[in-house]
Amino acid sequence: MPAALKMPEPELIEHAGLDSAVYIRIYLLGLKIFIPITLLAFGVLVPVNWTGETLDKIADLTFSNVDKLSISNVPPGSPSFVFYQLRRLEVSWFQTVANMRLRHLASESRRPDQLTVLVRNVPPDPDESVNVHVEHFFCVNHPDHYLCHQVVYNANDLAKIVAQRKALQNWLTYYENKYERKPTNRPTTKTGYGGFWGTTVDAIDFYTSKIHDLAEIEAAEREKIMNDPKSIMPAAFVSFKSRWGTAVCAQTQQCHNPTIWLTEWAPEPRDVYWDNLSIPYVELSIRRLLTTIALFFLIFCFMIPIAFVQSLANLEGIQKVLPFLKPLIEMKTVKSVIQGFLPGIALKIFLILLPTLLMTMSQIEGYTSLSYLDRRSAEKYFWFIIVNVFLGSIITGTAFQQLKSFLEQPPTEIPKTVGVSIPMKATFFITYIMVDGWAGIAAEILRLVPLVMFHLKNAFLVKTEQDRQQAMDPGHLDFATTEPRIQFYFLLGLVYAAVTPILLPFIIVFFAFSYVVFRHQVINVYDQKYESGARYWPDVHRRLIICLIISQLLMMGLLSTKKLAKATVLLLPQPILTIWFNRYCAGRFESAFSKFPLQEAMVKDTLEKATEPNLNLKEYLKDAYVHPVFKGKDFDRPRVVDEEESNPLVPTRRTSQATSRYNSEVSTSATNTPNKHNGSPSLM
Amino acid sequence: MPAALKMPEPELIEHAGLDSAVYIRIYLLGLKIFIPITLLAFGVLVPVNWTGETLDKIADLTFSNVDKLSISNVPPGSPSFVFYQLRRLEVSWFQTVANMRLRHLASESRRPDQLTVLVRNVPPDPDESVNVHVEHFFCVNHPDHYLCHQVVYNANDLAKIVAQRKALQNWLTYYENKYERKPTNRPTTKTGYGGFWGTTVDAIDFYTSKIHDLAEIEAAEREKIMNDPKSIMPAAFVSFKSRWGTAVCAQTQQCHNPTIWLTEWAPEPRDVYWDNLSIPYVELSIRRLLTTIALFFLIFCFMIPIAFVQSLANLEGIQKVLPFLKPLIEMKTVKSVIQGFLPGIALKIFLILLPTLLMTMSQIEGYTSLSYLDRRSAEKYFWFIIVNVFLGSIITGTAFQQLKSFLEQPPTEIPKTVGVSIPMKATFFITYIMVDGWAGIAAEILRLVPLVMFHLKNAFLVKTEQDRQQAMDPGHLDFATTEPRIQFYFLLGLVYAAVTPILLPFIIVFFAFSYVVFRHQVINVYDQKYESGARYWPDVHRRLIICLIISQLLMMGLLSTKKLAKATVLLLPQPILTIWFNRYCAGRFESAFSKFPLQEAMVKDTLEKATEPNLNLKEYLKDAYVHPVFKGKDFDRPRVVDEEESNPLVPTRRTSQATSRYNSEVSTSATNTPNKHNGSPSLM
Repeated sequence: MPAALKMPEPELIEHAGLDSAVYIRIYLLGLKIFIPITLLAFGVLVPVNWTGETLDKIADLTFSNVDKLSISNVPPGSPSFVFYQLRRLEVSWFQTVANMRLRHLASESRRPDQLTVLVRNVPPDPDESVNVHVEHFFCVNHPDHYLCHQVVYNANDLAKIVAQRKALQNWLTYYENKYERKPTNRPTTKTGYGGFWGTTVDAIDFYTSKIHDLAEIEAAEREKIMNDPKSIMPAAFVSFKSRWGTAVCAQTQQCHNPTIWLTEWAPEPRDVYWDNLSIPYVELSIRRLLTTIALFFLIFCFMIPIAFVQSLANLEGIQKVLPFLKPLIEMKTVKSVIQGFLPGIALKIFLILLPTLLMTMSQIEGYTSLSYLDRRSAEKYFWFIIVNVFLGSIITGTAFQQLKSFLEQPPTEIPKTVGVSIPMKATFFITYIMVDGWAGIAAEILRLVPLVMFHLKNAFLVKTEQDRQQAMDPGHLDFATTEPRIQFYFLLGLVYAAVTPILLPFIIVFFAFSYVVFRHQVINVYDQKYESGARYWPDVHRRLIICLIISQLLMMGLLSTKKLAKATVLLLPQPILTIWFNRYCAGRFESAFSKFPLQEAMVKDTLEKATEPNLNLKEYLKDAYVHPVFKGKDFDRPRVVDEEESNPLVPTRRTSQATSRYNSEVSTSATNTPNKHNGSPSLM
Repeated sequence: MPAALKMPEPELIEHAGLDSAVYIRIYLLGLKIFIPITLLAFGVLVPVNWTGETLDKIADLTFSNVDKLSISNVPPGSPSFVFYQLRRLEVSWFQTVANMRLRHLASESRRPDQLTVLVRNVPPDPDESVNVHVEHFFCVNHPDHYLCHQVVYNANDLAKIVAQRKALQNWLTYYENKYERKPTNRPTTKTGYGGFWGTTVDAIDFYTSKIHDLAEIEAAEREKIMNDPKSIMPAAFVSFKSRWGTAVCAQTQQCHNPTIWLTEWAPEPRDVYWDNLSIPYVELSIRRLLTTIALFFLIFCFMIPIAFVQSLANLEGIQKVLPFLKPLIEMKTVKSVIQGFLPGIALKIFLILLPTLLMTMSQIEGYTSLSYLDRRSAEKYFWFIIVNVFLGSIITGTAFQQLKSFLEQPPTEIPKTVGVSIPMKATFFITYIMVDGWAGIAAEILRLVPLVMFHLKNAFLVKTEQDRQQAMDPGHLDFATTEPRIQFYFLLGLVYAAVTPILLPFIIVFFAFSYVVFRHQVINVYDQKYESGARYWPDVHRRLIICLIISQLLMMGLLSTKKLAKATVLLLPQPILTIWFNRYCAGRFESAFSKFPLQEAMVKDTLEKATEPNLNLKEYLKDAYVHPVFKGKDFDRPRVVDEEESNPLVPTRRTSQATSRYNSEVSTSATNTPNKHNGSPSLM
């Protein structure tokens, strides 16, 4: 682990990708924000408070011991100064990350997505197939730059068949292994579902013939997809001769109707979410409206179905539905377990399923890349946490009751109501940080959940090497779930900075611990699914700004209840300045995350032309954007983060290689072996 | 005038420009919206109301006679249906206007702005001048498309000198004419300011020598500008060989730093606002923040300085400041005039100055074209009207008091408070429509203000033919002032449609009358300053949507006070649907107003190449974007709307030619004579 801490950043980026490197920088940002604030708070604010000078002013609030440390006499202007410093810090970080991304893009070796544009909503043409239509359109409108294109097939059915065949193949391997070990006894199976019932037959013969049948169906399906014009979706990956031409096509409008011939940068091949490529514009628009409404109800009314389940999950409910359990339930221990745990478990199950649910909603919204789906899910989760965890803990009552009370209160009263409750909840949030934050990180470093899962799978499911390898999946940074949680700690820190500074050290410990752990995980364990070049940073920045504004409003509310009118007036311009500052940052840096400037494109093109004049680009791009199911087993995904294999500078390789004893076992596997599953759970 | 009504739309566009043609369509939209609503209201709602069936339910509200016609029993669902129809109407209009714009752009003959991009924030280069730097940058990054460019000189000083010289030239002409008429008496003048004091000298000699001196200064200034690198602003008009290349450059990001090398479509040459071309990005951002804050205070606190002036403008104040007026003031008639009129006049003067003030604010915000300035000023004026005229009339008290009461009320209470007052203000708004709307249109057709101004100028200021011609300026559609007022009538109509339908016929009369009058003015009188191709339509649409949402919220407030909970629930989804619908429309059509699709560009390029293979574009574009002051008197602005001179199809030319008796007198003038000042005020 010390080795992981020593790795310099450029090497880290090369080793683990920019996504991961920037992700662990979020924790670093947390440290950079909260260490100075803590020093300031303990140097200036706490001594003032211990004197108890102004505590009698706010006798109407009840305080526990911890709350004695609360600030009740903010030196006027000091929060403004702190907010100014925070914004300065953030702008410099936005700039740094933008520069990192630009440097990363500039230094990247050739990748198919640099030269490819995803075209959606290709309009139907009565005389031409999609294939010919796309070719004609780009030959006419980008005559000097168009190179080739790849239409998108609707291969969802085929993908299902292939998955089925692979499962059967796995069973066949299992029985073949069994037969090899015990050649005297030819294994048998049953023809019914899962091999549990039906006629008993010879297993190897049975699976061989089944695979044979399925292979025929698969071939027919392949044939059908390749020949049926209906299986071609109105989308295509169009490749260009130069990065300049690609940048131009991705950033311009092609047709006078802006809902057809939609062009955007193609995601990395492995980042493509194939199912969503053919949704028409109007449908997209309706889907987004509906999911927004659904999200609103999910956030504000999620307690209703859970309360319903909880009401079912009590003793009487169970007795009614399953009367034969009655004697069991009436045992005292069982009774108390059910009464104590069941309602909590219903909520916990919902919370565990929540990220999946949010991801499904994002998928319904129709985004075309996994990275975008992650970013949208993170956004949804963030709002869920703000409303249900943060506000829900401060103001008791369900989110829906909160919403109602907010609508019936004057807008100036809301920060006051919330602000007044804040100091009283400090102890609760300190516990929360320890239970959720610290323990979560500890579980992460021990990889507790994957470890349990691995052993469970190993015991019950693993039949062949291929299964074992799948069960050993080293995992990846789950941006959609973890990032909103980090934001929650930022929010806690900012809100409590001036109210109850004793909370700050807990947050600092969380950030420091997380930084070290995730740095280790990113370097030694995780295997990222895609590389988006830190495209999520504008979202991170925006959410930080939202946390900042919430904390400013709450502080104003709190101060105004304490009749410190002067300080409130001083804070009044802060939210406005913060919003303006966010707009300034967005205008200044955000384009670095969504556009590729022509100048850079031209530089890279010129360089490539000079160094590789005889490059056959068409050959290089030919199969880059073929649906993975057509590539079969030899799907060679671009090896972006794999170059460290030959890089002697990575100090952590040595340790990790020692632990990766599975490497040799799985290296014969046909699918692309991720070469960083060193943190295999069985070793931890 | 009947001829004006008969002119078909394509001809109207060709004759008066798309801006004007679409502008009068706004009135047509008003008719299309309000005639069906009125029929519905009078067919269904009024009979229900006359029965007085539900009037007793709302006995807590006071009603005048007019209010008896108010709807107090909306058939549930009928507003939802009306809103649905309104949105359908609006989407079809957005589409129509977008298509009109696209057809207009496609049919336009070659114009410099089709091939030119405005580049701002050219970064300073230690080794190269701006001129060379721009050339190198575009030669490298747009090698196949770059043609030439024109740097922007800071010619503000020179423009002042030229204006001064022209004024002196005018005096010289005046005295020469005088001398010609009376050759015996050589005219004299005095050397002091305005010719009122100082030594008496021979006028012709005096002005000749003064013009001579100034011409020398002007030449020196010209010399200085052309040679001093500091007088070159970091902006340039870059022209391309093809519309495709221009579209690409205008829509893409050039440099990794998105605040330098900013490219946008160049405005028409006569639409350029030269003073704002060199504002750096950070300054722009700060300027916009400051004007937004200033606008907020202007809208909510404008009554404070006016109240101050009014307090000064009372009798005691005047007596104190100007004690010698005491005997005059103590006369009874004078006293009553001052007491009655002065406070009103102070407010009126402010309201007359308001559009100018808003325009100045937009200029400070740093927009680079006159059309954009107009659009931004219209936006500001719209909000001023909503807050101060609409809300200010409904809720008595100043805007600041309203704001305070809004902040201290729960958000659900606001629509109720406002909604309840609405029915009681119907009579006031009917009067307002007649006084402001009808009378304003009548004044417009009589051109009352210009007529008075012309005669005043003629009597006191006009010395030469050039002066007379300037005084005879036919005027133009003042989008920034008139469009927000139309929106206000839309708002009134939508709000009162279901509340007091008796107001609707007044609005219909206003729209019908305005439609006829402005159609006439646009065809026969106005001379537009620029042609933006209806780029303002998205703004018009957005503001209509805002009016629609305000009316929906107020109707919900009103219905909920009447305990018609069912109807309120039916209306609940309306604002959400309207907002979503606006986003859909914006995504679907807005790009037609800001982007030029590559397909269209390619078609026009190909056509041009085929029809004019030997065209010398460089020569054509050479002087297109030279600061007008450098073109001197032979500034040939592109004659876009002037082709009707040779078009025999325009029926109104004949009448208008008959009236334009000044044409021959002024045709020798060196500046470009607008050929449509037929509605010269002296004839009316």
